Amino acid sequence: MSTLYLIGAGPGDPELITLKAVNTLKKAQVVLYDALVNPELLNYCSAECELVYVGKKPGIHQYQQIYINDMIVDNGKRYEHVVRLKGGDSFVFGRGHEELEHARAHGMNVEIVPGITSAISVPAMSEIPVTKRGVNESFWVITGTTSSLEMSGDIALAAKSSATVVILMGMRHLSKIVELFSEARGENEAIAVIQNGSKENERSAICELHEIENQVEEQGLGSPAIIVIGEVARLGKRKIVEAYSASISVQEV
Amino acid sequence: MSTLYLIGAGPGDPELITLKAVNTLKKAQVVLYDALVNPELLNYCSAECELVYVGKKPGIHQYQQIYINDMIVDNGKRYEHVVRLKGGDSFVFGRGHEELEHARAHGMNVEIVPGITSAISVPAMSEIPVTKRGVNESFWVITGTTSSLEMSGDIALAAKSSATVVILMGMRHLSKIVELFSEARGENEAIAVIQNGSKENERSAICELHEIENQVEEQGLGSPAIIVIGEVARLGKRKIVEAYSASISVQEV
Repeated sequence: MSTLYLIGAGPGDPELITLKAVNTLKKAQVVLYDALVNPELLNYCSAECELVYVGKKPGIHQYQQIYINDMIVDNGKRYEHVVRLKGGDSFVFGRGHEELEHARAHGMNVEIVPGITSAISVPAMSEIPVTKRGVNESFWVITGTTSSLEMSGDIALAAKSSATVVILMGMRHLSKIVELFSEARGENEAIAVIQNGSKENERSAICELHEIENQVEEQGLGSPAIIVIGEVARLGKRKIVEAYSASISVQEV
Repeated sequence: MSTLYLIGAGPGDPELITLKAVNTLKKAQVVLYDALVNPELLNYCSAECELVYVGKKPGIHQYQQIYINDMIVDNGKRYEHVVRLKGGDSFVFGRGHEELEHARAHGMNVEIVPGITSAISVPAMSEIPVTKRGVNESFWVITGTTSSLEMSGDIALAAKSSATVVILMGMRHLSKIVELFSEARGENEAIAVIQNGSKENERSAICELHEIENQVEEQGLGSPAIIVIGEVARLGKRKIVEAYSASISVQEV
């Protein structure tokens, strides 16, 4: 029986993938991979392995989830070892479980290979710990943009909590997010915005809420970026890539 | 100048460590490792590497964080490549940033190698996605037991949210947690308790809030365990290791 391996590829640095993921890629007969996956990782695949890009590209209509689900099942009829390779972790806003259910409903086995999520690792590599003893007791990870493209209602409640709040895919709602957190925590609360985390072209702004929109505009920071709000953000080390051209197009993921 | 590498070792399965962590271990001259680290990982170290256990053991007074901090600096005077290897991720309730600050204050460089956190990966391997489209828009990770051994106040607020809530080190407060969530979400809310996640002796109970305390007692589930509360827990696959002896001692971590 054919098996679908749902692999998390990590935040972008090709060394931040697990041994289990590498060992699974080596045996793959077909790999369906995303835009956020570092293409270097595909070098672990054998020469015979079929590589299929199923991510989004600017200006090209995005592949729908239903289409990806069908491709998984179609490939399951041809191959025994099907890999779905996603950036980060499949179960952190990755729709991994939808693919699991679809594959299993069509008779495939499913195995899960967890990946390093950017929600924790990208702040970490800027020296921002999502938790710190004496500072906080929790962290809350939220999607900024829901499937209806609106801002998640959880953000307003999160602003009122004492948690470190990590928002993914939230750049289009940055003004509203800053407003909500300024009201609840004061405009001197610390915030970090990190774009292209763990990659060579990583850039970030780390400051207080009242300064962040100017910083983002000055540096031309865009998506995909991670927003971290909480006192721990104050510990972060800002990274600026001087050579980075502001003309490189960015897109909301 | 000496460098401290803060490595997250992942949830327990020795394949769930990153390539970067393995490459860093191979060059280590000394490794200070925790109780939750899988000892198999130490095989990546060279024959000359000094291995120092700094974790807790039942019945033995635990090493204090201040003592570990001093050991890092002492080893930094003798060695150029000092590794601190922790279970999970150093920045998820791992006190990694305290070690970073102490090492840097004493003139060491610090590099961070993120690990797979058990907070996300252990539910994932039971097929519980911390997020699922149409079910929730966030997940909130909380320590059940604060440094003063009390229950975190964030748990009461989390119960009122719609987030998937993941509680680490919360088994000693399970009754109170069940009570808070039953009040806020109803006693039919789904819950999973997973002990020894990703290891051979993993066991779990997956049910509704009103059933969990009986299930935990019947199976003798103890710490360290991960508690997941939210509709996504209903998707989980329960694991029971028949051969597991209830006489094996468990300890709160």
